[in-house]
Amino acid sequence: MGTIGDVGEFGLIARLTRRLPPGPSVPLGPGDDAAVVAAPDGRVVATTDLLVEGRHFRRDWSGPYDIGRKAAAQNLADVVAMGARPTALLVGFAAPPSTDAEWAERLYDGLADECRAAGASVAGGDVVGAPEITLAVTALGDLGGGAPLTRSGARPGDVVAVRGRLGHAAAGLALLTAGLEGPAELIAAHRRPEPPYAAGGEARAHGATALLDVSDGLVQDLGHIAAASGVRIDIDSAAVPVPDVLGPDGLRHALTGGEDHAFAGSFPPDARLPATWRRIGVVAEGSGVHVDGREPPAGGWDHFRT
Amino acid sequence: MGTIGDVGEFGLIARLTRRLPPGPSVPLGPGDDAAVVAAPDGRVVATTDLLVEGRHFRRDWSGPYDIGRKAAAQNLADVVAMGARPTALLVGFAAPPSTDAEWAERLYDGLADECRAAGASVAGGDVVGAPEITLAVTALGDLGGGAPLTRSGARPGDVVAVRGRLGHAAAGLALLTAGLEGPAELIAAHRRPEPPYAAGGEARAHGATALLDVSDGLVQDLGHIAAASGVRIDIDSAAVPVPDVLGPDGLRHALTGGEDHAFAGSFPPDARLPATWRRIGVVAEGSGVHVDGREPPAGGWDHFRT
Repeated sequence: MGTIGDVGEFGLIARLTRRLPPGPSVPLGPGDDAAVVAAPDGRVVATTDLLVEGRHFRRDWSGPYDIGRKAAAQNLADVVAMGARPTALLVGFAAPPSTDAEWAERLYDGLADECRAAGASVAGGDVVGAPEITLAVTALGDLGGGAPLTRSGARPGDVVAVRGRLGHAAAGLALLTAGLEGPAELIAAHRRPEPPYAAGGEARAHGATALLDVSDGLVQDLGHIAAASGVRIDIDSAAVPVPDVLGPDGLRHALTGGEDHAFAGSFPPDARLPATWRRIGVVAEGSGVHVDGREPPAGGWDHFRT
Repeated sequence: MGTIGDVGEFGLIARLTRRLPPGPSVPLGPGDDAAVVAAPDGRVVATTDLLVEGRHFRRDWSGPYDIGRKAAAQNLADVVAMGARPTALLVGFAAPPSTDAEWAERLYDGLADECRAAGASVAGGDVVGAPEITLAVTALGDLGGGAPLTRSGARPGDVVAVRGRLGHAAAGLALLTAGLEGPAELIAAHRRPEPPYAAGGEARAHGATALLDVSDGLVQDLGHIAAASGVRIDIDSAAVPVPDVLGPDGLRHALTGGEDHAFAGSFPPDARLPATWRRIGVVAEGSGVHVDGREPPAGGWDHFRT
């Protein structure tokens, strides 16, 4: 099939668009000046991320399909973290003309499949030439009549709970960095996160007072809730899920590793959360995030459970 | 103030966000997992573009304020070209850590001011490190209850009309490429297009059957309407506005130059267009775009008015 330089801009757009099945929330998809996306709530949730080769992904560590799924997942998770239902993705794709056209097609297959997993579809985008591969992903979503689940509503007395994997992607990245090839489960988690998209609706149904997705690490991200809500969050490290597969650095990965896109939030004290949610702490008066009653150590969390 | 590497990611975000006044269509702006933007129509118009340094702008030819205005303008114009009212912009900004922080601030001043000119505001975004400066701009808009003005509604017998400047940006780029510094009006047009944002509402009010913004050149862009509508478009070159300032290549620039973001569309034969619109042709049975009854010459339009 050749390179995207051989195929040309319009040829590439035609090939990629063919791989993007229209979704029910996209009355007008690619091909005009702009797309039209359903926003039945009367408001639209919108978020954007830039992903740059070498910083956010490596082509020698991840294939195009997984890069596409991950790029979509991290934006769709941001929409879900607002308590919204993802509706559509817009994708800007910059790449050198020497890029294999089939590589680009597999990337878009990954974007499309991750959208489908979240109930959304790719509504439009842009393709340009550039020295580096860069992806610009915008995700849109619908609040369905509810208030957005922000970071600012946590109240002293609330419980803090998490849904989804923690530390797996970070442990997988550490393995790849060390030149190791297993456990395969962890490397797969780095390559392709699996955000539990149902978490947004569940959090809303159980009265969540704040919600976010864990992209930079549990402690750092809960710090955003603590700051925005004007509260302290106390984590009980013994309650944090740390499966054996995470290895000897498991707790550190679970507390500081990002990119699994688990969801973490605060709930009223009497919330009866489903078993998929794990209570890991409480909200208190004060500021910052404490683990087992202590402030974050400058040197990291390595020895917290010793 | 130093570089954006000195300021750091969160420091830079704080500095930039301070320069982005919240707009009336953005109930929740930067600072959470996602923004919330008003979409009173129940649908949202959405478009995205990637702009890469060296391809879409040059820092030695344009200052950061103009680069910001132009990046916003080209996306806001796409929203207007759907007959929608711009509501919000999301901006992804990738730059090397050595980039001057004040340069970034001026860029965002330009983004904010162009948004204001179109009735929108910057609702959110992303800041990342990268080897090249790249801007990813997504614009959102509201249809206000009307049908989107697509490219596919032109009918034989319609008149073709344009609102806004043609060829000015291309002529300005040619001057800069040749190392010339004037006419200043043309160089300014290359640096900062001024899309007549009112054109979308006017086109709708006068029953436009198709509309787009001229980003790649009048003939090429009208070709998209011809293809999507299954019609031929006949341009009368004597009716195309070519002011003297465009110089000896004026007609070529007006027919093939992009980036002024004029608006071109088709209207019912009896449409009574305001004086700001210029009738330049008609829609006929057939395919493609003809100028003065001829197909586009392979060598370009240089000698069309000789």
